[in-house]
Amino acid sequence: MSRPTETERCIESLIAVFQKYAGKEGDNCRLSKTEFLTFMNTELAAFTKNQKDPGVLDRMMKKLDLNSDGQLDFQEFLNLIGGLAVACHESFMRSACCQK
Amino acid sequence: MSRPTETERCIESLIAVFQKYAGKEGDNCRLSKTEFLTFMNTELAAFTKNQKDPGVLDRMMKKLDLNSDGQLDFQEFLNLIGGLAVACHESFMRSACCQK
Repeated sequence: MSRPTETERCIESLIAVFQKYAGKEGDNCRLSKTEFLTFMNTELAAFTKNQKDPGVLDRMMKKLDLNSDGQLDFQEFLNLIGGLAVACHESFMRSACCQK
Repeated sequence: MSRPTETERCIESLIAVFQKYAGKEGDNCRLSKTEFLTFMNTELAAFTKNQKDPGVLDRMMKKLDLNSDGQLDFQEFLNLIGGLAVACHESFMRSACCQK
């Protein structure tokens, strides 16, 4: 096997991170509310520690939980990562690229 | 600054990979068809080289290009990564996890 590309490594990482947190309790294919909070406060602490509003993670969970089962499946988790990536990308573009 | 987490590194990588390929020609915020093909054949060669059907990348591009402008913006690109990640995750789950 040759060395994985950056994109392949990224896909593997997203799966591994999801499984790490989803596997902490109960259904190991879904993030419970507690697992979601642990994930956010561990992996995205730079984002969460700047939030003054204590309800922001509750509202994020509700918004991401498209089927309202109180848990996040892998697709719902990817929507979170995608949303954050788009926000970072847009903020970067405003400062640097995409002048037409 | 502390060391980025796995998730932060992943978000940065996705942005960097998109910008690398989108910046090759024309609009540097969108992947042209040529840039998409270069991306697929470079970063996801393990996937593309196993495709017997030469039309598969054309059809993927059409399906991903939600606003039909003939290019992929960052959100459309993330849908590709998300789709591949979900497919890998499901294949992994069938073999290993999620027995209830």
